[in-house]
Amino acid sequence: MPTIFSRIIAGEIPSYKVAENDDCFAFLDINPVQPGHTLIVPKREVDYIFDLTSDEYLRLQSFAHKVAHAVKAAVPCRKIGVAVIGLEVPHAHIHLIPLTHEGDMDFNNKKTLPAQEMQRLAEAISEAYNTQNNK
Amino acid sequence: MPTIFSRIIAGEIPSYKVAENDDCFAFLDINPVQPGHTLIVPKREVDYIFDLTSDEYLRLQSFAHKVAHAVKAAVPCRKIGVAVIGLEVPHAHIHLIPLTHEGDMDFNNKKTLPAQEMQRLAEAISEAYNTQNNK
Repeated sequence: MPTIFSRIIAGEIPSYKVAENDDCFAFLDINPVQPGHTLIVPKREVDYIFDLTSDEYLRLQSFAHKVAHAVKAAVPCRKIGVAVIGLEVPHAHIHLIPLTHEGDMDFNNKKTLPAQEMQRLAEAISEAYNTQNNK
Repeated sequence: MPTIFSRIIAGEIPSYKVAENDDCFAFLDINPVQPGHTLIVPKREVDYIFDLTSDEYLRLQSFAHKVAHAVKAAVPCRKIGVAVIGLEVPHAHIHLIPLTHEGDMDFNNKKTLPAQEMQRLAEAISEAYNTQNNK
């Protein structure tokens, strides 16, 4: 059975999509730790991120580097933090989280934002990504 | 003034070194969240990780991928988790943290391990790294 992330990538489950390339997909975390919290997922279903081949891992990270720049441009914050935990959904994913204060990356403090705000954030990040990458 | 990480890389401050290449350095976090918690640092002093050029960022991630395999081989755990927070020391660094349970990546729960145990962990990870990379 495909993972929930594969179903999101396939469009079977709706998501606030941010960006996509041949190998990777980026969308907003539905329960963000901070507004603009974005997930970076390889399209190939791999449970453990370091089981990606070196090439696949670097393609994922190259995409994450670009999306991080877009999140930073679109969301007020000091830096974009990164987390990979990987003990929940069995499909590797990188969390990109806008940070301003030291305690801002707190996975015990997930929020729910109004749909309209999620839509606005996804569009702002997507627009920054397209501008930065000449799309 | 050089950062504390540059002084560690230069050997001016002792550390439990794990691995090194031309651009990057890996050593144990002195206050581990879990035993085997390793820091990956670019030798070039850059505060914000996404300010590394795309090439530098991918060289750092390529090194992190290799060190993560070594930590996984040397330390009992389910997966290696990843975190970049970057609001403390102004020198970009990636945390690699051995995880078994969901709550295992808790930066409010730092430990101090006996020097002998830190030394043993550093040697075990270093040995795994050298074996996996034919050094």
